[in-house]
Amino acid sequence: MNKIKAGIINVTGYAGVELARILWQHTQVELVSVTGRSAAGKKLGDVFPHLAATGLTITAELETKVDIVFSALTHKTSAEGIIPLLNKGMRVVDMSADFRLKEATWYPQWYDFDHPAPELLKKAVYGLPELHRGSIAAAQIVANPGCYPTSAILALAPLVKLGLVEPDLVVDSKSGVSGAGRTLTLPTHFAEASDNVRAYGLGGHRHLPEISQELEALDPFKSVAVTFIPHVVPMTRGIESTCYARARAGKLSGGKEELDKVYYDFYRDEPYTRVMQQPPETKHTWGSNLCLLYPVIHLKTGRVVVISCIDNLVKGAAGQAVQNMNIMFGFPETDGLEALPIYP
Amino acid sequence: MNKIKAGIINVTGYAGVELARILWQHTQVELVSVTGRSAAGKKLGDVFPHLAATGLTITAELETKVDIVFSALTHKTSAEGIIPLLNKGMRVVDMSADFRLKEATWYPQWYDFDHPAPELLKKAVYGLPELHRGSIAAAQIVANPGCYPTSAILALAPLVKLGLVEPDLVVDSKSGVSGAGRTLTLPTHFAEASDNVRAYGLGGHRHLPEISQELEALDPFKSVAVTFIPHVVPMTRGIESTCYARARAGKLSGGKEELDKVYYDFYRDEPYTRVMQQPPETKHTWGSNLCLLYPVIHLKTGRVVVISCIDNLVKGAAGQAVQNMNIMFGFPETDGLEALPIYP
Amino acid sequence: MNKIKAGIINVTGYAGVELARILWQHTQVELVSVTGRSAAGKKLGDVFPHLAATGLTITAELETKVDIVFSALTHKTSAEGIIPLLNKGMRVVDMSADFRLKEATWYPQWYDFDHPAPELLKKAVYGLPELHRGSIAAAQIVANPGCYPTSAILALAPLVKLGLVEPDLVVDSKSGVSGAGRTLTLPTHFAEASDNVRAYGLGGHRHLPEISQELEALDPFKSVAVTFIPHVVPMTRGIESTCYARARAGKLSGGKEELDKVYYDFYRDEPYTRVMQQPPETKHTWGSNLCLLYPVIHLKTGRVVVISCIDNLVKGAAGQAVQNMNIMFGFPETDGLEALPIYP
Amino acid sequence: MNKIKAGIINVTGYAGVELARILWQHTQVELVSVTGRSAAGKKLGDVFPHLAATGLTITAELETKVDIVFSALTHKTSAEGIIPLLNKGMRVVDMSADFRLKEATWYPQWYDFDHPAPELLKKAVYGLPELHRGSIAAAQIVANPGCYPTSAILALAPLVKLGLVEPDLVVDSKSGVSGAGRTLTLPTHFAEASDNVRAYGLGGHRHLPEISQELEALDPFKSVAVTFIPHVVPMTRGIESTCYARARAGKLSGGKEELDKVYYDFYRDEPYTRVMQQPPETKHTWGSNLCLLYPVIHLKTGRVVVISCIDNLVKGAAGQAVQNMNIMFGFPETDGLEALPIYP
Repeated sequence: MNKIKAGIINVTGYAGVELARILWQHTQVELVSVTGRSAAGKKLGDVFPHLAATGLTITAELETKVDIVFSALTHKTSAEGIIPLLNKGMRVVDMSADFRLKEATWYPQWYDFDHPAPELLKKAVYGLPELHRGSIAAAQIVANPGCYPTSAILALAPLVKLGLVEPDLVVDSKSGVSGAGRTLTLPTHFAEASDNVRAYGLGGHRHLPEISQELEALDPFKSVAVTFIPHVVPMTRGIESTCYARARAGKLSGGKEELDKVYYDFYRDEPYTRVMQQPPETKHTWGSNLCLLYPVIHLKTGRVVVISCIDNLVKGAAGQAVQNMNIMFGFPETDGLEALPIYP
Repeated sequence: MNKIKAGIINVTGYAGVELARILWQHTQVELVSVTGRSAAGKKLGDVFPHLAATGLTITAELETKVDIVFSALTHKTSAEGIIPLLNKGMRVVDMSADFRLKEATWYPQWYDFDHPAPELLKKAVYGLPELHRGSIAAAQIVANPGCYPTSAILALAPLVKLGLVEPDLVVDSKSGVSGAGRTLTLPTHFAEASDNVRAYGLGGHRHLPEISQELEALDPFKSVAVTFIPHVVPMTRGIESTCYARARAGKLSGGKEELDKVYYDFYRDEPYTRVMQQPPETKHTWGSNLCLLYPVIHLKTGRVVVISCIDNLVKGAAGQAVQNMNIMFGFPETDGLEALPIYP
Repeated sequence: MNKIKAGIINVTGYAGVELARILWQHTQVELVSVTGRSAAGKKLGDVFPHLAATGLTITAELETKVDIVFSALTHKTSAEGIIPLLNKGMRVVDMSADFRLKEATWYPQWYDFDHPAPELLKKAVYGLPELHRGSIAAAQIVANPGCYPTSAILALAPLVKLGLVEPDLVVDSKSGVSGAGRTLTLPTHFAEASDNVRAYGLGGHRHLPEISQELEALDPFKSVAVTFIPHVVPMTRGIESTCYARARAGKLSGGKEELDKVYYDFYRDEPYTRVMQQPPETKHTWGSNLCLLYPVIHLKTGRVVVISCIDNLVKGAAGQAVQNMNIMFGFPETDGLEALPIYP
Repeated sequence: MNKIKAGIINVTGYAGVELARILWQHTQVELVSVTGRSAAGKKLGDVFPHLAATGLTITAELETKVDIVFSALTHKTSAEGIIPLLNKGMRVVDMSADFRLKEATWYPQWYDFDHPAPELLKKAVYGLPELHRGSIAAAQIVANPGCYPTSAILALAPLVKLGLVEPDLVVDSKSGVSGAGRTLTLPTHFAEASDNVRAYGLGGHRHLPEISQELEALDPFKSVAVTFIPHVVPMTRGIESTCYARARAGKLSGGKEELDKVYYDFYRDEPYTRVMQQPPETKHTWGSNLCLLYPVIHLKTGRVVVISCIDNLVKGAAGQAVQNMNIMFGFPETDGLEALPIYP
C-alpha cells in the first residue's frame, strides 16, 4: 500500500511537534517535510529530542510535493502561507483561526487583520468531525477548531441542537499552560505559572466568536449568548470546561437519566467523545484524542452543568487535525490515534 | 502589656499548623497549648519542622487555661469538643462547619449528623468580618467561614446586597489541593492530582448552603439561587472563584466604572479585601490574608463576572480566624497578619 | 498469526496499569486476564478510565491459561504468588525485587523476609536486556530491574566493564513521585510533595544491593563501592541519575571524545539506550522506553560524570518488562514500544 | 528610634522583590527607594501586586540618600553601578557575583568581563555570616553569596575546616526554577520545566569557583577539589544540595554521633543553620532564612553525605542580604527575618 505524503508548516511549536509525533504512528501517512523559519537546517531531533527517530530535517519551505499540508502557523501568517497552496490544489488542515470564522468582518474585530481571501471562508469547513464529518470528507481546506471551542462545543452541542436549554450559556474553562504555545511570555514563565490560577480574556477571548458561531448554527432558534472565561492552571496539558445552562421550561424533566440518554444518543458511534458515568478528569485524556463528557442536572432549579475534558494538544489541536485528515482521505478515523492515554 | 493566651485543638492538620504559624507572629497573643490525638507527646517541631521555633509540645487535651480556643477539629467532632468549653465560658473560634449554618435541620441533610446543641446556632456568629464585624466583637463563639464561601461571598456580597443582580448566581471555584486537608486520599495523592483538573461535588457540595445562607440574608429580596461547582487544580494553596451573575434590568448601566465604584465603596476601609485594577491571580495572595477582587460587566448582555482570589489556608481558614480573634479582643485587626504575600 | 496470551497479576498499581497500556499496543500479544484483590469484579475501565477501551474485568485470580505472566505484586507477596506458576511451567516476568538478588541472605537483610525458594535465584535472570539479552531469551523467570538500578547501571556499565574507573562510585538519583506507587503515604500527599525536594534512604536504600551486584559482576576487578542517594522531586514520572566516578590512572586521557566512543560502542545496536550530544532531560523520555545517556569528563581532575534519564514507569518498569517478554518470545524487541515520548 | 534608609537597585527581579518583601517587615529599616530601568515610573504595586502595600514607585535611579544600598543587578552591570556609590562612601550589599571572587583573573575566565576595580576585591567581604561575621560588621561592601554556594559551603564547612575529609568533594544540587531569575528563557518556560529534571553547567558552573575559594580558605591543607553539578527541578523555590565526601583515615570513627557533634558545635549559636534529626526537605524552609543540615556517615566505607536545604531566594539571596545588613549596622541578626517558613 502506498502511503500518502504529509508536510507540516511551522513544526517548531507545540501543535507542530505533536502533529509530528502522531503522524509518526500513522500507518497510511508518511511525514516527509517539516518547516520552520528560525530552526531551518537543523535536524528535528536536535531541537526536539523526542522526535529524533523521525530522522527529519527542518527546512525553510516545503521541499516536496505532499498530499496533505498541516499549517501550524499563527493567525494571519497562516492564511498568507496557505492561500498559494490552495491555489495549487493542495488539501490543507489549518491549525490557526484563519478559516474558522464565517464572517470576514470578524477578523479585523477579533484578530486585528483583514482577511486576505474572504471568499475562501465559505469553502472552508470547520473541522469538528462530530458536527461536520460529511463536509470535512469533501473539503479542500479544513479549519481545525480551537482548543477551548472543541471542549465547549462538544459539551453543549446536544443541548443546543435539541433546543433543550435557554440561550444563556456560561463556559468556564481551565487550561494547561501549553495552550499558550512555546513562545516565551511572563505569564508562562515557570515561577509565575506554578501554584497559580489566572483568569484572562475577561474583555472577550478570541475563541468566543468561534464557540458562538458553531452553537448558534446548531440552535433551532438561532440565538445563543455565550459567556466564556478561560483560566490557566499549573499543568502542562489539558482543558476542563465546566458549562452552565438552564433547561427550557418543560424540558429535561426526566433528570440525569434523560440527560445521559441525550448525550449517549447524540454521540453514538463517535470514536472520541465518551459520556462518562463518573466526573472525568483532564488526566484521563493525556496524550489521547478523547473528549470525556459528564452532564448533570439539578431538577429543582433546572440548572444543567456539563463537564468536558480534553488534551488541548491532541483533541484540541494535533489529534483532531489528524482525525480530520483521516476523514478527508477515507482512512479509518482512528489511524494514528489508537494509543491509550498515559496515566498517571 | 500582658499577652492573652491561646490554644489550638487539633493542631496537626493544615489549618492547625497555619494557625500556629500566624499566632507566632502576633504581638498580643501567646500560643500556650496545642492538642492532637495521634501525635500527643511529640514536640510540635518534630512533626512539623517549620514550627520548631515555637518550642511547643503536642498534648492530648488543652492543659492550660486559655483566653481563646481555636478548634481545628473536623465537623461533628468539633461541636462535641467545643460545647463543654463554651459551657465553661470560654471564647472559641471554630474552624469547622458546626456553627456556620443557622438551620439545625441542615446538619443531618448536609453533614450527616444531628446537631448536639441547636440552640447555640443562633448565638454563634458567622465569622466573615466584612459582613458581621460588630457581632463578632461581642461573640462567644465565632464560626469561621469555609474557604470556598469566603471567596464566593466576598465576591458577590456587594451585588446581592444592593439588589443589582438577578438571583441566579453561578460560582465556579478552583482550589489548591491543601483545601482537602492532610488526610490521605487517592485524589490528593501527588501522581493523581498533578497535571490534572477535577470537578467534584456535582451533586451538591457542603459549602453550598453556607454560601446561600449568607447571600440570601444580604439580599433585599431574600431569594438567591446559587450553583456552585468546585474544582481541584494542581497547586498547594489558593482559591480562585469566578462568579457569574446578570444585572437586573436597569441596573449597572454605568458599566465597569459604576461596578468598580460599587466594590470600592462596599469595601472601603476593609484591611483585606482589595479591588484590583487588573485581574488578580491566586499567587498574589500566597501566605497572606488578602482577598483580591475584580468585577467586570459586558454591557450588551448584562452579564457580570467577578474574580475572587484568596489563600485558602489564610483568608480561607487560619488568617480569618486570627482576624476574628483580633476583633473579639479589640486588637488591631491586622496584628499577626501584616506579612506580605510570598511571591513568586 | 496467533497472538500469545498475557496476564497481569495485581494490575491496580502504577506499574500494572502501565503494563496494560503498553500491551494494548502490542501486535503479537493479547492481554486476557488482569487481577487485583481489592478491585476484583470491577471493570478495569471503571477504576482506570484511560483503560476503558480494553474491555477487561479485574478478577481475584488469573482465570485463563496464559503464555506469559507479569507480576506487579510487591516483594515477598510476589514470590509467593509466582512460585506455584513457575512450578506449572509458566513463564514469568516479575516486577518485584524477589528474584533480582543472587544472594538469598540479602533478602532478610534488605527486604525483611526469608526467601521462599533460594534455588530459583540462580535460575532467574536479571532482566536488563543490554547486559543479559541472551539469558533472558531462554529464561523461565525474568526479574525485572528496579527503576533506580536501571538508570544507574546503564549509566555506569560501560565504564565499569572496561575497567576505566576507580571502584568508588556515587549515584545521585532524582525520581518522580509515581516511583513510590499508588499506595497512599504522607510524603506522596500532593501538598507535601509539591514544591519540594526530599532525600531519603540515607541509611541504605533497597536498590543499592541490586546496583552493586550488577556492576560488580561487570567489573574486571570484582570490586565496586557504590554510594546511592535517591531523592523525590515534584513530578509524576521520570528518573534522572547523576553518576560520579573517577578515571583510573592512565585511562580516558582522550577526554570527551574517547568517552563518547566508549558509550557509542558499548550501546551500538541497542534500541533504547541513546547517547546524547546534549545533556538529556527526563521530559524527553515521558511515556517511552528510552534511556538517554550523557557522559562528561573533566580531564584535569579525572572526574567522570554520567547523566542518565528514563521514564521510571516504562524503561524503569512496565516498558522494560515488555522488552523482556519480546526477547523471551522472539518478537521484535520494539513491539508495543514504538510510540515516541509525549512532549511537552 | 530613627530607622535607617535603604534602597534597592533593580528591584524588578526575583531577588529584588524578595528584598522589598523582607525589608517591609524590618523594624529598623525604611525602604525608601527602588529602581528599575524598564519599569521606571510605575508603581511597584502595579508591577508586583503583592508589594502594593509598600506604596513605592519605581524610579530610574536612586533618588534619595540612603544608608544602605542593595544591588540586585546582574554581574558586570552591578560592579559598574556600585563603584560610584562606594566612592561616595555608601555601604553596599551586592547580590551579584562581582565582588565574590578574590582573584581578578577569574572574572574574565568565568564571567566574560574584566573586573573594573580589582583593588576592591580585597576590601569586599564574602557575606556568609557563619564564616565571616566579624569582617561583615566592618565592611563597606559585602558580596552576598550565590544560592548554590550558600547551600554547599554551609554543608561542607565543618568537615573541611576541621580537616576531617579528603579533598575530593562532590556537590549535587537541585534548585527550584526561580533561581534562574525572571528573565524569560526556554528552559524556564512552564511547559518545558514542569515534569522535568535537567542537569546543566556540566562544563563548569559559575558558582564553582566561589565554592572552591571559600572551602579552600577553610581547609588546613589549602587543597580542595570540588565537582559541582546543578539541576533544575519543577518547583518555584528551594535548593537541596547533597554533598559527598570521604573521611580521612582515622577521622570520624565515632560515626553519626561524632558527626552530629561536629555540626552542632560548629553552628552553635547560629540563628539560621539548623542541624536536623531527620533528613530535611526544601519545603521546610519556604520563605525563611533557614539552612537545614543533615550529615550521615557510612562507617564501613568512610563515605560522608551531607544534606543541605535552603530557600534560594531567602538564605540564598535576599534574606542573607538582610542578615548581612543587620550585622553591618549592629541590628539584631534576626530583624526582618523572624517569620516562620510557610508550609505546606
